[in-house]
Amino acid sequence: MTRTNTSTADAGAPWITRKLGAFVAEHPSAGWPPHVDREAGRTLLNWLGCAIGACRHPAVEAALAAARELAPSAQATVLGRSDRVDIGNAALINGIASHTLDFDDTHLRTIIHPAGPVASAVIALAEHGGMTGRAIIDALILGVDVECRVGNAIYPDHYDRGWHITGSTGMLGAAAACARLLQLDAAHATMALGIAASQPTGVREQFGSMTKALHVGAAARIGLTAALMAKHGYTSSERALEAPRGLVQTFSTKHDWREIEDALGERFEITTNTYKPFACGIVIHPSIDGCIQLRGQKDIAVDAIERVDLIVHPLVLELTGKRAPRRGLEGKFSVYHACATALLFGKAGEAEFSDACVNDVRVIALRDRIHARPDAAMDEDAADVTVLMRDGRSFHQRVEHAIGSLERPMTDADLQQKVHGLVDPVLGAAATTRLIDLCAELAEAPDVRRLIAATRPA
Amino acid sequence: MTRTNTSTADAGAPWITRKLGAFVAEHPSAGWPPHVDREAGRTLLNWLGCAIGACRHPAVEAALAAARELAPSAQATVLGRSDRVDIGNAALINGIASHTLDFDDTHLRTIIHPAGPVASAVIALAEHGGMTGRAIIDALILGVDVECRVGNAIYPDHYDRGWHITGSTGMLGAAAACARLLQLDAAHATMALGIAASQPTGVREQFGSMTKALHVGAAARIGLTAALMAKHGYTSSERALEAPRGLVQTFSTKHDWREIEDALGERFEITTNTYKPFACGIVIHPSIDGCIQLRGQKDIAVDAIERVDLIVHPLVLELTGKRAPRRGLEGKFSVYHACATALLFGKAGEAEFSDACVNDVRVIALRDRIHARPDAAMDEDAADVTVLMRDGRSFHQRVEHAIGSLERPMTDADLQQKVHGLVDPVLGAAATTRLIDLCAELAEAPDVRRLIAATRPA
Repeated sequence: MTRTNTSTADAGAPWITRKLGAFVAEHPSAGWPPHVDREAGRTLLNWLGCAIGACRHPAVEAALAAARELAPSAQATVLGRSDRVDIGNAALINGIASHTLDFDDTHLRTIIHPAGPVASAVIALAEHGGMTGRAIIDALILGVDVECRVGNAIYPDHYDRGWHITGSTGMLGAAAACARLLQLDAAHATMALGIAASQPTGVREQFGSMTKALHVGAAARIGLTAALMAKHGYTSSERALEAPRGLVQTFSTKHDWREIEDALGERFEITTNTYKPFACGIVIHPSIDGCIQLRGQKDIAVDAIERVDLIVHPLVLELTGKRAPRRGLEGKFSVYHACATALLFGKAGEAEFSDACVNDVRVIALRDRIHARPDAAMDEDAADVTVLMRDGRSFHQRVEHAIGSLERPMTDADLQQKVHGLVDPVLGAAATTRLIDLCAELAEAPDVRRLIAATRPA
Repeated sequence: MTRTNTSTADAGAPWITRKLGAFVAEHPSAGWPPHVDREAGRTLLNWLGCAIGACRHPAVEAALAAARELAPSAQATVLGRSDRVDIGNAALINGIASHTLDFDDTHLRTIIHPAGPVASAVIALAEHGGMTGRAIIDALILGVDVECRVGNAIYPDHYDRGWHITGSTGMLGAAAACARLLQLDAAHATMALGIAASQPTGVREQFGSMTKALHVGAAARIGLTAALMAKHGYTSSERALEAPRGLVQTFSTKHDWREIEDALGERFEITTNTYKPFACGIVIHPSIDGCIQLRGQKDIAVDAIERVDLIVHPLVLELTGKRAPRRGLEGKFSVYHACATALLFGKAGEAEFSDACVNDVRVIALRDRIHARPDAAMDEDAADVTVLMRDGRSFHQRVEHAIGSLERPMTDADLQQKVHGLVDPVLGAAATTRLIDLCAELAEAPDVRRLIAATRPA
């Protein structure tokens, strides 16, 4: 039977949906300091690298095969491939690809992966619609801002309930960005956000399955189609985000509206975006970082190592304590494996989490000599590494903030090296360099065509 | 930072996702008594009538215009129109259409509208794939069962939190039905349900906007694409529904697993489906019913009515107490308007909630003489109507269970009359009769082509 729509919750919430709609529609192009644009470029490059690096992954193949059942038109490119599909499916599949390796960007306050939903929608729409590079960068910055501000308002309660926050805020970022690209006015952009607000994706139980990455791709597709529906007059509640029965109060007890309203248009969340240097959970990055630093500074013959001792935050062993991984994916959950590759090869990219590397006898021999001790006094961002050599010498490295953190961000060169690691195997080194250059020049480009062409294999 | 995935919730839940996957894949065709098939036919006919009746509504036009931006292939039909779009968009748009008039079916225990998500996905997939009528009926019955059983397990807590339950369980029904139609095995059907489980749609704040109907269409599209992804090897958690961080525990405190497991394959939820006789909220149906009965039985000259007194459940005035509606949609929230049309015309279909009817001077004159008194002792399903004539005579009708309830279901003739009311204006009376006949014969049809052809305007 029909029932009354009452709630004991916050009926007096401010006009959040409208305010964000107006912000997205009306904020001036490039209306921020240059470092905001610069971080947008890094965000886009990292996203491109991750998506192209995973473009032949079984998750991408399966999603593309399913999309083909709908006989999609050839509007936009599946990154790293010659395949083209409609813009909705391009957003979906590139979003899936960008998250599949768990190597994408992280907004550390909320653990949202900002680029996946927003960039996947923006690039698909812009490729088909011929929007300028400037419009693309604007849309990316505004979309990420909406996505992360809503995340700030609800994290951690919402995440702790079981939602994969990238999928459950990302559709708002994608809707905002696409509304901007489509030049919707404030009223229509509000509707786009409202339509997207009814479509959060993703429960955390999916972690470990392909559906984790679907959350990112679905958010991209939903945001894009929400903006298209709003463009054509589809309506939603003007208070879809903030009303007692709106999205935020329905799926989070915490709803700190100030996180959305404060300094809107002055402070941009994309400036706090970070990029993973290593292709595994962020919790073991400090240990890997310490091992790579030692390798770079000292004359360490790996065969002459007696033992390695790590002191780490307790979460490291809880999440990544796998002693004897057998498959590449299991290697991502082994601090021992990751540190062995760091000492042996000086890196821990996707290649170091392959089945072959996990079963490499040199890696196994070193892995078994690595020991980790949990210490609750250690920060999550820190690690302490001691290498004892057979000849009695010992080397020590303490990491206070891992590379890739806000305190020690990846340099542009680091990021380019990461992208080479991901994209060279798909496109070759020369084409990857060209892609990096085109990405850096995007803000001045008349459209995204040359950049997209550079993502296709020869 | 990465955090542990712990929960104080029910970690020992039974294997719900797998059990439903096996049920959907393996239950025998027509493995139920004949009355189950009969109700499936009524469910399908009511859905067809609602979708065709709304096929030119602005919500449908807007959704179709947005879909056209993706240049969809012509795989399946938008009901009541000559337009064809890909199967995903056909599921979406027909789902939107079927719910737009708020005239669709209701599973009263959960207030789920079962057909919208399931039939919209099934018919789109079957039109393109050439599945038999028997397979379609099987898929509809199994899909509705999955959808409503999950609803039983979480209602009312889940609904009270703010979720529009048709959108947040419908994708499971659609995934189940499409997995069945695609003849997925138990393992793949489990993945289809798991993929869908990450994609609930719909917050109740949208009630009153077009996005309410989007919830139904989105659920259809999501279920269909989840089944296609599973077919091609996309994976999800095998415990996506029941795990502590799975769908059910993430969005509902109540999770009564017995509602899903008990008598699975023996009791079918579709047998408790109901159909609205009147195109408005179910809460005023008893009052309308009483007025129509009086009009049919007594010699009531409407001009000679002095006053009409209703005794109703208090919710009636809370939800539908609008004294002077001006637009058709407002008329749906006026028990006075609805009862005036019932006494004047003997019906309260979509035409009686048009702007013209709401502003008809005869309706207004009668409306103003109708009075309603709330009485907490009245059941929601009951009403008491007294008509006092100018000559002093009075007529009385008490309704214990409104027409359309489980206790007084719509007859087949009632349902056909309702469908004529919806479809005649689109296709004409003769074509509507043919559509009704083809729907009744569907279980024996080699495919759905003739039925679909009958939904297109000449």
